[in-house]
Amino acid sequence: MADLPTGNAVIGQSGGPTAVINQALVGVIEGLREGLVNAGKVKRIFGMRHGVRGISSGKADELIDLAPLSAERLERIARTPSAALGSTRDKPDAAYCDRILEGCRSNDIRYFFYIGGNDSADTCRIVAEKAAEAGYELRCFHVPKTIDNDLRENDHTPGFPSAARFVTLAHMGDALDNASLGGIKINIIMGRNAGFLTASAALARELRETDEDPAKRPAPHLIYVPEVPFVMDEFLADVDAVYTKLGRCQIAVSEGIRDADGKEIGPQLMGTGEVDAHGNVQLSGSGALGDGLAGFLKKGLTPAGGKAPRIRADTFGYLQRCWPETSTVDAAEARGVGRFAAELASNGEMSASVTIVRTSNAIDSYRSAFGRAELSAVARHARHVPPELLSGRNNVSPSFYDYCQPLVGDLPHFERL
Amino acid sequence: MADLPTGNAVIGQSGGPTAVINQALVGVIEGLREGLVNAGKVKRIFGMRHGVRGISSGKADELIDLAPLSAERLERIARTPSAALGSTRDKPDAAYCDRILEGCRSNDIRYFFYIGGNDSADTCRIVAEKAAEAGYELRCFHVPKTIDNDLRENDHTPGFPSAARFVTLAHMGDALDNASLGGIKINIIMGRNAGFLTASAALARELRETDEDPAKRPAPHLIYVPEVPFVMDEFLADVDAVYTKLGRCQIAVSEGIRDADGKEIGPQLMGTGEVDAHGNVQLSGSGALGDGLAGFLKKGLTPAGGKAPRIRADTFGYLQRCWPETSTVDAAEARGVGRFAAELASNGEMSASVTIVRTSNAIDSYRSAFGRAELSAVARHARHVPPELLSGRNNVSPSFYDYCQPLVGDLPHFERL
Repeated sequence: MADLPTGNAVIGQSGGPTAVINQALVGVIEGLREGLVNAGKVKRIFGMRHGVRGISSGKADELIDLAPLSAERLERIARTPSAALGSTRDKPDAAYCDRILEGCRSNDIRYFFYIGGNDSADTCRIVAEKAAEAGYELRCFHVPKTIDNDLRENDHTPGFPSAARFVTLAHMGDALDNASLGGIKINIIMGRNAGFLTASAALARELRETDEDPAKRPAPHLIYVPEVPFVMDEFLADVDAVYTKLGRCQIAVSEGIRDADGKEIGPQLMGTGEVDAHGNVQLSGSGALGDGLAGFLKKGLTPAGGKAPRIRADTFGYLQRCWPETSTVDAAEARGVGRFAAELASNGEMSASVTIVRTSNAIDSYRSAFGRAELSAVARHARHVPPELLSGRNNVSPSFYDYCQPLVGDLPHFERL
Repeated sequence: MADLPTGNAVIGQSGGPTAVINQALVGVIEGLREGLVNAGKVKRIFGMRHGVRGISSGKADELIDLAPLSAERLERIARTPSAALGSTRDKPDAAYCDRILEGCRSNDIRYFFYIGGNDSADTCRIVAEKAAEAGYELRCFHVPKTIDNDLRENDHTPGFPSAARFVTLAHMGDALDNASLGGIKINIIMGRNAGFLTASAALARELRETDEDPAKRPAPHLIYVPEVPFVMDEFLADVDAVYTKLGRCQIAVSEGIRDADGKEIGPQLMGTGEVDAHGNVQLSGSGALGDGLAGFLKKGLTPAGGKAPRIRADTFGYLQRCWPETSTVDAAEARGVGRFAAELASNGEMSASVTIVRTSNAIDSYRSAFGRAELSAVARHARHVPPELLSGRNNVSPSFYDYCQPLVGDLPHFERL
């Protein structure tokens, strides 16, 4: 490590938190302690309060000294959901990145670790470029995190397996509830652009059934993801067919479903919505899409002068990303990507993004490894559910079960009469 | 048991299912097999499909023969959430009860077990009275069940502890999510008339803090139950005070909050809603109350020409009653009330409702016992959160923690930086 720069390290967490984002934080700390700190190349490890908002503020108390944290306390932090350092939705522009770089220089930061999605990879990319232009030696490492599972170069991303486990267990319980009282049940699931999390509802079927007739599938009978154009009349026909045959219908719908022109259904049903800093209409934290779809079905399925079917909509909301009980695979991999980022730094690698590669897939022998990608390969662009994991306009393919089951882990087995 | 009637037994499940309602079903079956079946007083045990809807239909296939179920299969059914026999929202009137009695007579039913809330106790009461009038020997036993925890004569009811555990864990995770990004978070919780389930969010605090200043409490900072009149302007002032001090505010709100005149807030914010068979506006299965409160806060808290605070609302919905991971105490007690109902029948008791009594309260030495009450003492009337478990207009008292903690069981401990 002789030719590595000597200075301090900083770690930040960004974007929507997950149930295992603190595993990644603790992984970076552990990896640094065993590597660069041990070798005398890193003097201090700082945590940014609320991501780049902290380090760009110029305020000293927005950087936390992580040195006093004992191994026992780190272990408890790792098992705590959501971002222990605080998170931010800020998406830095060039001027903002100048302030981040200034924060790094004034604190002698030489190693910059940022845990987040593709926006965070892009922040790392810009900051690294600016440092290079300024002749300031700084290495920026992006540590992957997102329940949306939409990072390129990755088989899957930390945070997704735990969220998928929540969505699966929720649909298992909810399917039994729906069967006991009947009627139509809509569940709205997070994932604005990528349908991976919505698709994971399919694991609730226990059986890998993929019958073309939705009424012959176990619940959820219908699954709608943003990757497949959503046509309101087809939706009505799908639900009608299942409900007429079974007297019930459980439906998993992504918050990001969009029409054939790529326009999101949510805002169309909701009227004008709140717009966030990225120019997106707020979809999460509101029951409006579910209520809008329920109202549409009620209108379409109530016979003239007849009784409306029982229709209910739940929006699973923030519990998907903060439910305290995590996937075992996810917790271990999130810790691993953090450690691997620190190892890349110890090994003298320049700025990079950590990736997850699947090396063995059977549920009893699932294995993964970590790799590195260029920041520009991961930054900004989103990954979508590939066509081979989907089937028709409202289902997943058998391959999806192969892909998702090992990540979610063992599920309870329920008995029916 | 010489003077007990000889014939068949029937078991039904009614109302909103819970995560442990099948424990009660299996408890009745086990209790009958060990008692009345063993003594030759009960020949066959039937299950009603969809509660009284099944036995009143006159169709033979609406009664399931439960004899072939092995002990292993019963154990798996007991651990399966929601009503394995199917449930119903029907609230029988006198003519309907005549058809139930007819269904009992034509199947030689002498023991009638009905698992449900106060409406189910009332159905038992009416059917028992009609049988007595008709000179038909029939004993009706009500087995308690409701996540609302609103049955009289009971310390608490099966189903509530598991739902309370879900609400507690959800608030623990959600509080960390809220702390990491800031802003105002509203969580809408089931419980139309009784605030027990909403109050259980207080257990998420880990510490039993009950400071009068909501900003000094751990999250959830504010708790609103139907028992305390909800004044919109006070709500705005409460949230403003917390948000101004902390930059965040987590709020637990019962779907059944009502104003000083006893009128529900939900329908007032929602406009006209769907009305169910009981004449109630539909509150569950819709995000409208949460969205309405979020819109109200946004209007009240956005400074003129300034930026609106981040406000999100989640409606926890049906997951509260069907989440597959249950409270240990709840699963055991639900099994116990079922067995106790069968034992009452074996002991020659006339029609009755089973109750739960707390006999020891410390968290390490919590104990409960089962008792009997007259059906009329439990039927129809609802229990509310007693004033001594509440504090001020937006909190629980220290006694609430004593009451609720042993039911919910051990909780994870989370670490903060």
